[in-house]
Amino acid sequence: MALIVQKYGGSSVADAERIRTVAQRIAATRDKGDQVVVVVSAMGDTTDKLINLARQLSRQPDMRELDRLLSTGEIVSSTLLAMALHGMGYGAISLTGAQAGIRTDSTYSRARIQRIESQRVVRELEKGNIVIVAGFQGITEEMDVTTLGRGGSDTTAVALAASLGAEICQIYTDVDGVYTADPSLIPEAQTLSEIGYEEMLELASYGAKVVHPRAVELGELFNIPILVASSFTGSSGTLIHGGVSMEVRNKVRSIAHDFDVAKITVVGIPDHPGIAVAIFQPLSQADISIDTIVQNASINNITDLTFTVAESQLARAMEVVKPIAESIGARECASDSKLGKISIIGTGMQNVPGYAARMFWALSEQGINIQLITTSEIRITCIIDEARVEGAVRALHRAFELEIAE
Amino acid sequence: MALIVQKYGGSSVADAERIRTVAQRIAATRDKGDQVVVVVSAMGDTTDKLINLARQLSRQPDMRELDRLLSTGEIVSSTLLAMALHGMGYGAISLTGAQAGIRTDSTYSRARIQRIESQRVVRELEKGNIVIVAGFQGITEEMDVTTLGRGGSDTTAVALAASLGAEICQIYTDVDGVYTADPSLIPEAQTLSEIGYEEMLELASYGAKVVHPRAVELGELFNIPILVASSFTGSSGTLIHGGVSMEVRNKVRSIAHDFDVAKITVVGIPDHPGIAVAIFQPLSQADISIDTIVQNASINNITDLTFTVAESQLARAMEVVKPIAESIGARECASDSKLGKISIIGTGMQNVPGYAARMFWALSEQGINIQLITTSEIRITCIIDEARVEGAVRALHRAFELEIAE
Repeated sequence: MALIVQKYGGSSVADAERIRTVAQRIAATRDKGDQVVVVVSAMGDTTDKLINLARQLSRQPDMRELDRLLSTGEIVSSTLLAMALHGMGYGAISLTGAQAGIRTDSTYSRARIQRIESQRVVRELEKGNIVIVAGFQGITEEMDVTTLGRGGSDTTAVALAASLGAEICQIYTDVDGVYTADPSLIPEAQTLSEIGYEEMLELASYGAKVVHPRAVELGELFNIPILVASSFTGSSGTLIHGGVSMEVRNKVRSIAHDFDVAKITVVGIPDHPGIAVAIFQPLSQADISIDTIVQNASINNITDLTFTVAESQLARAMEVVKPIAESIGARECASDSKLGKISIIGTGMQNVPGYAARMFWALSEQGINIQLITTSEIRITCIIDEARVEGAVRALHRAFELEIAE
Repeated sequence: MALIVQKYGGSSVADAERIRTVAQRIAATRDKGDQVVVVVSAMGDTTDKLINLARQLSRQPDMRELDRLLSTGEIVSSTLLAMALHGMGYGAISLTGAQAGIRTDSTYSRARIQRIESQRVVRELEKGNIVIVAGFQGITEEMDVTTLGRGGSDTTAVALAASLGAEICQIYTDVDGVYTADPSLIPEAQTLSEIGYEEMLELASYGAKVVHPRAVELGELFNIPILVASSFTGSSGTLIHGGVSMEVRNKVRSIAHDFDVAKITVVGIPDHPGIAVAIFQPLSQADISIDTIVQNASINNITDLTFTVAESQLARAMEVVKPIAESIGARECASDSKLGKISIIGTGMQNVPGYAARMFWALSEQGINIQLITTSEIRITCIIDEARVEGAVRALHRAFELEIAE
């Protein structure tokens, strides 16, 4: 008898009919003799509707109140799912995040899980119940409800799996798994049967839509295998785990892309220690996420610093950076909002020469100009014109023969 | 500085606009320097929608799950109301029933409040906050959420008022107060400026729509004045309290009626001790509420027993009673579903002769046949044909001169 944690996203429980379908899937798992803990998101667009209601009443809703409000969405879906299982004759009980012992810090709207006090869940499992936990929420030391922010339900599921010593955490969503590229761009994209934690993290730029990096990080930390699969089809999904065979046949596993990239270049900075801090600390305080950073080698003690942000944050980032650039004696501050990002991802790339060369060759063959390059051990990323992103993904998918099924 | 508990019903918080209006009312109370605790129901028809969802998933939803599901409705409205107050610059905090310390037994769907641990509410009041409590809900010793059943939010409000030593409990709803008769039948019906607890309890048959008898009982027990008023108009409402002047000018205060009455008569029962128990205990176990009971004087040790139930419960009641009637040797079991009930209510009636006579005269003048009569110290009730109820209310309202304003 194994313990399995399953997570179902909002589109999987959008209405009574779908909740019934999910209940059948859970029941089928239970019928195999396994213990099942289920983490569930709010139904369909419930969360958006609640946020909209809140905004009608306050332009900046109090975070504590907003978290309490949003947490009701998952309570509703968890109770309905329990009822559906009862209706099919299965023992099931729904628990709030608080009752499931999800203890968080008190950073409302994006609380971090500090620990899980899983006694109640264990007790219910021992009674033979399927335990349905409201995802995306926890409780502070002061017993106030918090929500976990983006990827909160995925994170709840993996954290519960880790704390309960589950065999696997299965995340059911509306896609068939992790693809070699975005299938909406590349129809011949393949689903991967398995992928390593690190590769999955690097895929975050589009992979976030499949499973949130926070959950993947937690899975890696506690070595919990995560299966990502569709709750709508019979697809076998993608297993994210640490045991991916060392020598994969094709080292590039997937092409990631992002249309939403803007670039800021601070030109002609007198180069001395502390300029990076001077620029990036205020940006971080303004809650602006920086992606790629490139600093050119200094010539005559004058350097250029380039970094990318999400397009939607460009205007605010420029507001923050311009006065700083002036104060540190930079010549000017330029921006370009029409950029995109493409990456090839795969373990072992670093040790096999020729991958970067093949990537640059494929792009140049299409006449695509590379503006910036960054690399990690398992990823090579190029910043290019937004208009060329789609063609670049297509060219790279072909160049690395990803259309061939594993 | 007084402490005031206010309760707002579902129609008062049905949308963002109305929630803002309620927030303005609360703010106006706060501006007078009083401390305010607010109890709020779920928005509009939220509870019905949630019940409907539950029924789609299970014909008999598990009571524990259903209570958790329904409790979310009041959490949503309480957080939104707190946000609206924040938006207006007022300190406010929403609390669940659990956080407000509403401890109940574990009778799901109609839990009884056992005690209130009001430390958190007191602490928030001391901080200067307006405290918004989600009505209709509590928590068991095992920390499971319960709902309080009919009149639950009214009951929460009065119970909180009692436990906090509030000066008054104001119940805001969609009617102007307690009327001398149902204003939808009698356009010239007047609102009463005050009424006693006992009179209000007797008015329950239509009064329940104004404030639930459970809340009135609790108000009487702890001597908490309850003001019932409209949240939509500027009406001054009706004060339910124990200090109504002893000698009211017109002893009949209000005419209550009920269209939903059915009668069962068990005919020709051999009269011996225990027949009432034999009949009414199984009915009670079947959760059928009995209203009026009349047993005729026994002739030759043979008696008839008549009682009334709600029309909707007649079929089930007959199923229960028929085999019992047979087993105790009764001759037959007859029913009539087309009945109604009219009552005159007022303290002191018992000691002033002529009220019953005037009631019977007014009905007979209309040619209305009285089928059953029951009385209490402050009420005389007649069961008549359903079709004659409206005319009877009209005749009685006139006979006791209730159209004349106090």
